[in-house]
Amino acid sequence: MKKIALDLKGSFVTHEELQNMKPQIMEAQKTLLNGSGISSDMIGWVDYMNNYDEVEYEEIKASASYIINNSDAIILLGIGGSYLGARASIEAIRGDFHNELCKPQVYYAGQNLSGAYLKNLLEVVKTKKVCIIVVSKSGTTLETALVFRIIRDMMDEKYKEQSKNRIFVVTDEKKGALKSLSELYGYKAFKIPDNIGGRYSVITPVGLLPMAAAGLDTDKFIEGLRDASNEYQTTDFENNICCLYAAARNILNKKGKEVEILVGYEPSIISIAEWWKQLFGESEGKNEQGIFPASLNFTTDLHSMGQFVQEGKKIIFETTIVTEQPKGDIVVPADSNDFDKLNYLSGRTFNDINDKAFEGTFMAHNEGKVPGIVIKVPEMNEFYLGKLFYFFMMTCAISGYTNNIDPFTQPGVENYKKNMFRLLGK
Amino acid sequence: MKKIALDLKGSFVTHEELQNMKPQIMEAQKTLLNGSGISSDMIGWVDYMNNYDEVEYEEIKASASYIINNSDAIILLGIGGSYLGARASIEAIRGDFHNELCKPQVYYAGQNLSGAYLKNLLEVVKTKKVCIIVVSKSGTTLETALVFRIIRDMMDEKYKEQSKNRIFVVTDEKKGALKSLSELYGYKAFKIPDNIGGRYSVITPVGLLPMAAAGLDTDKFIEGLRDASNEYQTTDFENNICCLYAAARNILNKKGKEVEILVGYEPSIISIAEWWKQLFGESEGKNEQGIFPASLNFTTDLHSMGQFVQEGKKIIFETTIVTEQPKGDIVVPADSNDFDKLNYLSGRTFNDINDKAFEGTFMAHNEGKVPGIVIKVPEMNEFYLGKLFYFFMMTCAISGYTNNIDPFTQPGVENYKKNMFRLLGK
Repeated sequence: MKKIALDLKGSFVTHEELQNMKPQIMEAQKTLLNGSGISSDMIGWVDYMNNYDEVEYEEIKASASYIINNSDAIILLGIGGSYLGARASIEAIRGDFHNELCKPQVYYAGQNLSGAYLKNLLEVVKTKKVCIIVVSKSGTTLETALVFRIIRDMMDEKYKEQSKNRIFVVTDEKKGALKSLSELYGYKAFKIPDNIGGRYSVITPVGLLPMAAAGLDTDKFIEGLRDASNEYQTTDFENNICCLYAAARNILNKKGKEVEILVGYEPSIISIAEWWKQLFGESEGKNEQGIFPASLNFTTDLHSMGQFVQEGKKIIFETTIVTEQPKGDIVVPADSNDFDKLNYLSGRTFNDINDKAFEGTFMAHNEGKVPGIVIKVPEMNEFYLGKLFYFFMMTCAISGYTNNIDPFTQPGVENYKKNMFRLLGK
Repeated sequence: MKKIALDLKGSFVTHEELQNMKPQIMEAQKTLLNGSGISSDMIGWVDYMNNYDEVEYEEIKASASYIINNSDAIILLGIGGSYLGARASIEAIRGDFHNELCKPQVYYAGQNLSGAYLKNLLEVVKTKKVCIIVVSKSGTTLETALVFRIIRDMMDEKYKEQSKNRIFVVTDEKKGALKSLSELYGYKAFKIPDNIGGRYSVITPVGLLPMAAAGLDTDKFIEGLRDASNEYQTTDFENNICCLYAAARNILNKKGKEVEILVGYEPSIISIAEWWKQLFGESEGKNEQGIFPASLNFTTDLHSMGQFVQEGKKIIFETTIVTEQPKGDIVVPADSNDFDKLNYLSGRTFNDINDKAFEGTFMAHNEGKVPGIVIKVPEMNEFYLGKLFYFFMMTCAISGYTNNIDPFTQPGVENYKKNMFRLLGK
């Protein structure tokens, strides 16, 4: 079985720098794995996949089956960690234009406060058979709770007493608004463990239920997570890509690289970068520190942000996810006139040319003094997706502990809420 | 008529700082407007809307009419400035889920090299009536030219000799591969002026043809551009929001703010930020200088990047586009149980609550020492969209000249291409 590979050759990080960083990194890993660090009550994700609630998992699959058999469209309600992982997975696996090519369709709601967005969404699903998945630990998250009021009314009007069979919730096991609602109305409920925070929750029912309902192979996903938990807990620094990635990005940050851009060459993985931004941004953006996480989609964005990366302020390092074996390809045909002078490429495939674009770009940016890290994923299937998520989560936790930052809290998120609730007259 | 307003009250930029910056800014503006600056052969956009080719414009409207009457879907082929402005406009005006609610649908191609993306797109349009718009000045841009080979074959197979009536090109007036193709096959062709670069070209047929074909009111758009060209060319510094915005962001950059995030509270304007990133990133990212442009969509991203903005490294300033009068709204209903404790909001609208989220967020980030600039757009219609584009373009050009940077070139974009073409054996 091929592994996800990390390539630091273009990172301008030397063997010596890595060795100097090693003690700190290994100490952080140890602290994490033996549960002696700050917020160690939130490290349930480290071995969650090895101590699964098999009964609940079977129920997830049964619910997913019901959803698949009874709906044209799923609306997934949730915000932040309550939907980003599922969305990233569904788009990466089902691929571009999946909502026009796969059933059931998947729509997202409760992740913003736009009246226009919600109104249009209701119009879109009007004539479709719909099931709902609502994800919220507390059930009081403003965006999701408000939108769930609207969606519940819509479902009740559409399906009357059958409505409850089409609404699934993922929430706290014992308490909270969503738990109470599910008990009152009889919605099927799945649990979010107390010891796993939102941005680490894609491996729990938070991710598993929507993934399974969208037809993804969650068995393979869990297999990938288990494989990752085994491989990435090794204390062999040189052979642990989480430790190496954590070390490299911290070394680069100390050298003045303030922005990390996560780059992909497949548009279907754009949402993986959105998930990654939450993971690292929310974990590390504290105490006036942290690497600003941004993302670009190449070659598209080479025609917008490429100039800046190449010749702009030298505050960037570039981490590229290379997906080997993309799903589907097309051969370039010959053209009798060859006005565009591209006949030298006829017979070659788009994916082959895309690979060369990556290689050429990586070299060019390196020549432009932009450090490059490469993460090679053998295939973007459920197995490697599980591994990739775990790889990033483990890196992030180690990175946080290395910097004496709590990678499991997000105290700053409350500030705007306090103001907003005051303005709303709560 | 209400104007687009710029609010610098939360920017931490003082009156004195602005006054100190004023001479440089006004000198840059003068240099731009009298055409004495570097690359002054590329300032055609400044007054383009006032010297329109009315004959061509009527032909654009006629072609758009044909497209609307004869297609379920348009495929717009182009990359960078050849599609970002049109996409931003179509999404901002037609709104969320427009491809499911409006006809004709609009798909994008030729903006990446993914074989999987292209293969899926072909599958999606298989049973639809299709028209094609191809935008490329040279006609040899790799992504667009390669994909056009595939799409042309598809169209020829589907429509035989009628194919040519369904393909529209926007390209150089006299030369280039796309021009030759259009002459050979009889495609209707529209011209990209020689004195307007890609990222300033949304005001030309590059933007106008796809916008009109998607049912947008281009008359109103041009009216907005004319209004902007009048209002934003004033030499009255204090009353010229382009000069003020250019001054403020440069002052902030000098104070160590390396990243500008463009924030919106409506998901339909996400692509405006993509267009803006190209405009500023490509114009300013030179000589190892420039402000790194990133974008966030709130409140969605408050649950991912909010923590970083609030408490992370103090390298960010935040520019928010506030859209007054969003299209469509929904009232929050009362709930008999009020488990979510949100009944205090019942009777209020989502857009009202969204406004309060903006105000609360702006204050919180300000309290977190993040400078905030606000751009208030009275309504997201074609008129104000024209003004908004012009506002950003004028700001960008002034900003570039202020920093002795050429805002009309992108030399660094060639570096990766050279490597790529070598690897491809050109």
